[in-house]
Amino acid sequence: MNDLLSATGTTIFTVMSALAVQHGAINLGQGFPDYDGPPDVLKAAADALMDGRNQYPPLTGVPELRQAVAAANKRFYSIEVDPNAEVIVTSGATEAITASLMAVLNPGDECVLIEPLYDTYLPVVKLLGAVPKLVRLNPPKWELPRDELAAAFSSRTKAILFNTPMNPTGKVFTTAELAFIADLVQRHDCYAVCDEVYEHLTYDGWRHIPLMTLPGMRERCMRIGSAGKTFNLTGWKVGYVTCDRSLAPNVAKAHQNLTFTTAPNLQRGVAVGLAKDDAYFAGLSDQLAERRDLLAEGLTALGFQVLPAMGSYFVTADIRSIGFTGDDVAFCRTLTEEAKVTAIPVTAFYAGENPPNHYARFAFCKNESVLREALARIGAWM
Amino acid sequence: MNDLLSATGTTIFTVMSALAVQHGAINLGQGFPDYDGPPDVLKAAADALMDGRNQYPPLTGVPELRQAVAAANKRFYSIEVDPNAEVIVTSGATEAITASLMAVLNPGDECVLIEPLYDTYLPVVKLLGAVPKLVRLNPPKWELPRDELAAAFSSRTKAILFNTPMNPTGKVFTTAELAFIADLVQRHDCYAVCDEVYEHLTYDGWRHIPLMTLPGMRERCMRIGSAGKTFNLTGWKVGYVTCDRSLAPNVAKAHQNLTFTTAPNLQRGVAVGLAKDDAYFAGLSDQLAERRDLLAEGLTALGFQVLPAMGSYFVTADIRSIGFTGDDVAFCRTLTEEAKVTAIPVTAFYAGENPPNHYARFAFCKNESVLREALARIGAWM
Ligand SMILES: CSCCC(=O)C(=O)O
Ligand SMILES: CSCCC(=O)C(=O)O
Repeated sequence: MNDLLSATGTTIFTVMSALAVQHGAINLGQGFPDYDGPPDVLKAAADALMDGRNQYPPLTGVPELRQAVAAANKRFYSIEVDPNAEVIVTSGATEAITASLMAVLNPGDECVLIEPLYDTYLPVVKLLGAVPKLVRLNPPKWELPRDELAAAFSSRTKAILFNTPMNPTGKVFTTAELAFIADLVQRHDCYAVCDEVYEHLTYDGWRHIPLMTLPGMRERCMRIGSAGKTFNLTGWKVGYVTCDRSLAPNVAKAHQNLTFTTAPNLQRGVAVGLAKDDAYFAGLSDQLAERRDLLAEGLTALGFQVLPAMGSYFVTADIRSIGFTGDDVAFCRTLTEEAKVTAIPVTAFYAGENPPNHYARFAFCKNESVLREALARIGAWM
Repeated sequence: MNDLLSATGTTIFTVMSALAVQHGAINLGQGFPDYDGPPDVLKAAADALMDGRNQYPPLTGVPELRQAVAAANKRFYSIEVDPNAEVIVTSGATEAITASLMAVLNPGDECVLIEPLYDTYLPVVKLLGAVPKLVRLNPPKWELPRDELAAAFSSRTKAILFNTPMNPTGKVFTTAELAFIADLVQRHDCYAVCDEVYEHLTYDGWRHIPLMTLPGMRERCMRIGSAGKTFNLTGWKVGYVTCDRSLAPNVAKAHQNLTFTTAPNLQRGVAVGLAKDDAYFAGLSDQLAERRDLLAEGLTALGFQVLPAMGSYFVTADIRSIGFTGDDVAFCRTLTEEAKVTAIPVTAFYAGENPPNHYARFAFCKNESVLREALARIGAWM
């Protein structure tokens, strides 16, 4: 069997969700909302099952969604793209990331990755025969170590893959950081795979800036968005890659080999979602900011040092600050078993040696009553 | 960019479907029905959007569908599988094939493939760094050359990937052929990836036999089914892998890296479909057999030598028999442009040198009026 997969454990998200069920714990682990998607999007997807468009849609997506993705690029970031040649709809952002890496990496190519990282990044780079180069952000502020990042690039670098707004840290990359990355990418004549699934989930005035909008980066970026995160529909698995027409054919051919295409009714539902008015997108982040505040303030009141989260579904808390002496894995297991609240150990986002092992990640994309109950349980346990 | 993908053309199915649209041709190319899925399955999928299960389902699929797949294995083939440990739902059979190959192949491993072959098989094997070994069936009867197949296996063979009922040939592998393959797989201690998406589409009393049911093969097969073909819903992209619990974790981990999971509402719709009564499955193949007869007899009456098709959506016709002197690509292009009927050149299913280039594949999964009109157009053109 494939050695790399055999040596990999089951994803932490499945492990912790199963543990949460087993112990009747409130699941603040895996990042999914416990509230539903917008009714009009749901209805559009249901109606779209009934008008006879249930056969293969075009490989790159139904025209309605490609146009909606192009329009969203323009509306939110002033990025002009051709919906017929520069958008590829995928079966979720996971496939979009894999397809984008597959589109550019040859065996032996180097790919720069930033730790902490999402758990499919490293296996996919390795399965493609490419060589990962890991650079680690510095907690607690998750600063980008510029010298180390520059040193990770070489003449063999084909791509950098990174995530902003960032899971699990809640970091939103600054314009200065993005400019530094853009300069490296251009100097090494390589590509950037930009996992921007939390693009609309930023708080406190922080705004997501796609690397693609920086000078010289239009042709070098594969920018990935996700309906799951934008419309509280994580199960739908509808993602989209926006990239230059010079890159799009290879992304499409990778997609052809991975899934070929994506259910048309869900695509049409997402197209309705992307056309929603500004109030929807503002409301999405305002509501999440409130939930974040509730959870972060509650954890702080219990004695946790909570790291700032400018974006994403997640806050991370320092488990040492409450006097817990075990590592993050022990903490998350104990919290699930004893307090009946599940969080994710941040070491699950590290592949290299000696990661920081004193952070737990809590998802706040939950109803406020659930967050309050989780806080009460943690308080009672402490 | 990735050299292998850069060197690959767009899939023939997209090319020919686009050409069909351009010329207002009847599309007997890409294999999709022009009629819809069962109303109860459509309604189940629409209803399933409305009861709040739109977040990540379990990685291996919703329980309802895993149970339905296990029950179908038992009902149709007396295969007993554990729905909790031996079924993985994927985003279509394309992903199921890629995930199954990824689960077992290491770079440098050999994988036996049978030509003519579906157009993702070879690129996926190569992208995984494995070495394809091609064996060619002998037309017009598409016989399996046993000596050549045996010679293609070696101590480096990790897997064979093949398709029965077979696209594009309509071949249904016989028990004797399957026994020969099973023996090779066991003697070389390797695996079989069994693309069985047309399992319910067999005609004239031919029955599909999963390789997995042969003695000694229960632990060695990854058996792939597809809702698209079984329920006339090719756009849904819901597939499923049935395999032993020793293989399933690696298939699941591959799936995790490719798409992670598949839309729950579509899974729940497919679960309703798999529970349909025997009359549904009999009706499916009876109706397709009638469509096949209509098309095959019509083409024969026009002077084509039509090869027998015991299964699948397709018949192949010898273009020399009507005196066409160009190759299959020229024929399919001319037929689209002049007769306004689109077929697929069978050379698109070959990767090796000098394939037979005098066959065109016609899909018969179309309304009878459409098939009649296509025949009339071809007749008028001739
Ligand atoms: C695809 S399961 C993981 C969901 C997620 O993005 C997370 O919890 O980090
Ligand atoms: C996934 S598009 C191709 C459909 C099909 O199986 C075929 O036409 O051969």
